[in-house]
Amino acid sequence: MPDTIRIALDAMGGDHGPSSVIPAAALALEAKPHLRFRIFGDEARIKPFFEAHPQLKGASEIIHTDVFISNDEKPSVAVRKGRQSSMRLAIDDVAEGKSDCVISAGNTGALMATAKLVLRCLPGVERPAIATVLPSTTGPTVTLDLGANLTCDAENLVQFALLGSCFARTVLKIEKPSVGLLNIGSEDQKGHETLRDAAEVLQALNFPGRYIGFVEGNDITTGDVDVVVTDGFTGNVALKTAEGVGKFVSQVLKEELGGSFLGKMGYLIASGAMKRAKHRMDPRVYNGALFLGLSQVCIKSHGSADAFAFSRAIHVGADMVANRFNALVAEQIENLAKDEAFVAMPMPSQIDLNG
Amino acid sequence: MPDTIRIALDAMGGDHGPSSVIPAAALALEAKPHLRFRIFGDEARIKPFFEAHPQLKGASEIIHTDVFISNDEKPSVAVRKGRQSSMRLAIDDVAEGKSDCVISAGNTGALMATAKLVLRCLPGVERPAIATVLPSTTGPTVTLDLGANLTCDAENLVQFALLGSCFARTVLKIEKPSVGLLNIGSEDQKGHETLRDAAEVLQALNFPGRYIGFVEGNDITTGDVDVVVTDGFTGNVALKTAEGVGKFVSQVLKEELGGSFLGKMGYLIASGAMKRAKHRMDPRVYNGALFLGLSQVCIKSHGSADAFAFSRAIHVGADMVANRFNALVAEQIENLAKDEAFVAMPMPSQIDLNG
Repeated sequence: MPDTIRIALDAMGGDHGPSSVIPAAALALEAKPHLRFRIFGDEARIKPFFEAHPQLKGASEIIHTDVFISNDEKPSVAVRKGRQSSMRLAIDDVAEGKSDCVISAGNTGALMATAKLVLRCLPGVERPAIATVLPSTTGPTVTLDLGANLTCDAENLVQFALLGSCFARTVLKIEKPSVGLLNIGSEDQKGHETLRDAAEVLQALNFPGRYIGFVEGNDITTGDVDVVVTDGFTGNVALKTAEGVGKFVSQVLKEELGGSFLGKMGYLIASGAMKRAKHRMDPRVYNGALFLGLSQVCIKSHGSADAFAFSRAIHVGADMVANRFNALVAEQIENLAKDEAFVAMPMPSQIDLNG
Repeated sequence: MPDTIRIALDAMGGDHGPSSVIPAAALALEAKPHLRFRIFGDEARIKPFFEAHPQLKGASEIIHTDVFISNDEKPSVAVRKGRQSSMRLAIDDVAEGKSDCVISAGNTGALMATAKLVLRCLPGVERPAIATVLPSTTGPTVTLDLGANLTCDAENLVQFALLGSCFARTVLKIEKPSVGLLNIGSEDQKGHETLRDAAEVLQALNFPGRYIGFVEGNDITTGDVDVVVTDGFTGNVALKTAEGVGKFVSQVLKEELGGSFLGKMGYLIASGAMKRAKHRMDPRVYNGALFLGLSQVCIKSHGSADAFAFSRAIHVGADMVANRFNALVAEQIENLAKDEAFVAMPMPSQIDLNG
């Protein structure tokens, strides 16, 4: 049996709170009996959900608090006033070594601000990045940064490439993931100086991935690249655009198939195929914004996550811990600092969107 | 009958050359008998396509050249060496007043570089922008810039908002189009200083649109905003990401529906509904990258455009001419320069992605 992995859960975050977090923990425990849960939140609201999951009860401990960070709380206020909140206590728990990773569906800004403050970055990591795993034609694609950093310099982008590669290797089990820098053309002379500087370093660098050059927005879903690296502004726009198109397509299909007798009939008959298609495109399979580069594993589940989606975030967190994601990152960042190619590179340029 | 509109067509651009351009002209002429075409390219390759379209023959003139700009030609080389090319001659034709607008499916970079050089910007327009019209849940959304400008300052963004609004009013017939600035959150304090500066101007400005604030990537397809304004780097990534997701969804559906008997059966029965859905999501309906802000109307059709898609680009060009798009822009840019809100605004900040 694998080593026990202790997961700190913020039970009060997201749209559904304990009603999705507790069944999610039960689901994850079924697949991974070596998980143990430390659950932070309102005991009176959490306990009733244990009744349907007696096995989970034995694998969990509730740490009560009645302070919660709301979804619209400003990050700065959450950090200042939320010291007794379920989110903060769960993060503290990991920092104190009582849990191995923390998962919350709460306010992204508050979670990132608190995690940065309490957990800090791994030594040598300049800034944490938010990553996510998107489905593509041939398999999952890791994309980062998705909004932690409005402005990035070439060193940040190189570090994000390392973070993404380490994730693809340890969790997605891709031995030598392909890595691309997001640009507006694949030719070497395209785009910003920052991107060209980062490209030069990645070409020369010995790291767990394989740099394949500049990629474009459409490559995120072709499956031709395993890790897509960009600044937080561009990445956030790309992610939300992709989500928007997905919703648009599904709404139009629903309206048109539901709007006629033949449409409904056809849908019924093809429902198995439609479900398989939906499953292949399901972003919930790797639900979660991964905060990479922090000293401990921290995952932000989608606020609207149901029990299945939240359980996937637990799986990813457990896999990152079990497969020693952070140890690999630490090793790679140390190598990077010693890398001749990296040290020799002048990297003055910065994607400075504030000008 | 409306006034005659003379369209200069580069017959040699794109993946299909005359085999899609000439049938496209015939299609457009059926719907708009007042169009006249001046067709630039290899007469021997163009003429055979007239046989099926005798009506088009009477409405067209071929201007022969055997010089073409290839798809992988560098823009600078195309400008220097392509003076006798079908693309350049078509653009010259508009500049000389022999045609009212120019349409090419050729190399985007070469077309933009040549059009900027030959046609120049409308007085007061700092930089042209590339715009396109994307389908959304409730109607078309104009998005710009899509790659003409890597770096943009607040004034550029304000001008793009004007260009997009004028297009939405004159061609899409939206009297007071809603305009949003693409950002990574809708709160006023979000994002780059450049965006906040542009927002401040647009809030105070009297222009043909209605500024509704910051929008996010997913808003491009919700239909909640008619015009989405961004810098060329971000816009290009967003557009290509959207295209990629569209292709991904359609490929997965095809594979799953085609991969089983019930899938195929269901698809057949629901094929009417599926076709209607496809039509609503068809980016070909407004095929074309619109080069806005130039002294004359210039449209880049998608390189892979078939006859239907290319004919849509012709329609858009004809509508821009007929509805006096450029006259409205000229008027608005003049107003902008006199606008107290605009003149009083300090706009030092720039989305300077080169740092």
